[in-house]
Amino acid sequence: MKGRFITFEGCEGSGKSTQIRLLSERLKKQGVSHIVTREPGGSDIAEQIRNIILNGKNTAMCDECEALLYAAARAQHLREVVQPALNGGTLVLCDRFVDSSLAYQGYARGLGLDFVREINSFAMRDFRPDITLFLDISPRAAFERKHGADEDDRMEQLGMAFHQKVYEGYLKIAEAEPERVAKVACSGSKWETAENIYALLKSRKLI
Amino acid sequence: MKGRFITFEGCEGSGKSTQIRLLSERLKKQGVSHIVTREPGGSDIAEQIRNIILNGKNTAMCDECEALLYAAARAQHLREVVQPALNGGTLVLCDRFVDSSLAYQGYARGLGLDFVREINSFAMRDFRPDITLFLDISPRAAFERKHGADEDDRMEQLGMAFHQKVYEGYLKIAEAEPERVAKVACSGSKWETAENIYALLKSRKLI
Repeated sequence: MKGRFITFEGCEGSGKSTQIRLLSERLKKQGVSHIVTREPGGSDIAEQIRNIILNGKNTAMCDECEALLYAAARAQHLREVVQPALNGGTLVLCDRFVDSSLAYQGYARGLGLDFVREINSFAMRDFRPDITLFLDISPRAAFERKHGADEDDRMEQLGMAFHQKVYEGYLKIAEAEPERVAKVACSGSKWETAENIYALLKSRKLI
Repeated sequence: MKGRFITFEGCEGSGKSTQIRLLSERLKKQGVSHIVTREPGGSDIAEQIRNIILNGKNTAMCDECEALLYAAARAQHLREVVQPALNGGTLVLCDRFVDSSLAYQGYARGLGLDFVREINSFAMRDFRPDITLFLDISPRAAFERKHGADEDDRMEQLGMAFHQKVYEGYLKIAEAEPERVAKVACSGSKWETAENIYALLKSRKLI
């Protein structure tokens, strides 16, 4: 049987990595075969691309270049890591995927959702996640929880107005594709959020 | 007045770099303001992308990733180097441009010309070279003239069948866009080819 592909999306500091770790630990205890991966990156070549994208010195990078680099890393990660795992029946948990490109480059950078969908359909062909968990917490609340930005990370230097736009982008995507994109309330503790995620995946028979 | 944008295309060893150097030297003697640049690369960020593309260790790179990386480097090079020079009235001589992506990825790799045109139209918007000089020499003749392939360069390890396909791709592009793409005969000495190129550019009032 083909494995399931579960992607986690949300603003910086929304708790994606924490939630993936908690879910992975629970699945491990249950003996469920799975891998944890992330974008941009997740394979050797894709990580080389990630280093260019996130390098704080690359301030001259234009929006088109950035969007194409994300799509390039995604194409490689998908073919080298995600698809082989799914074909082997392994569950894949992925920290960020195509919706990050749509929310960040398409919506917040203003390149347009259609443009970014187009280059990503080239990168992904007809591939889609089985479910996308959007950790629905506003960027201000997320930043406060994280105690400020990481100064070495180019994506986190962009200021609150930008991140608010990213958040709006995610809300629009979730509205447009309610079957695939599930909003997860994150107002409680990380344990409560983890429980919400687990219950949701169980009810959809994805784990 | 806006500067002119002249791109040089052809198979490996077709003499692009030599011809660009000879033309640049001649223009320099005449006091014609110009810059020489190349793809993939030509700007700091684009050269970082070039290093990933041409790294001989990156054999796992899928065709989609490669095509998107070329487009990403092009978007950056165009905005950071080519367009500012042209806007300042400077002539730009460029070693490879979009037709390399069409011939190599679109035609020879089999991704399809339409797909590669699409991602590059995202990278370039409506931008086009004023003229493209296709150095029309078969890959076998070109390789013999170059005394074999450079083993460190991933693009040159691909074998004669691949390069023959690239050549066919170029011929198709030249057929489809005869106003923009000029075929330059390269059977004579490099000095004769240089003279052909100079005469052609003069006759089109591009220099």
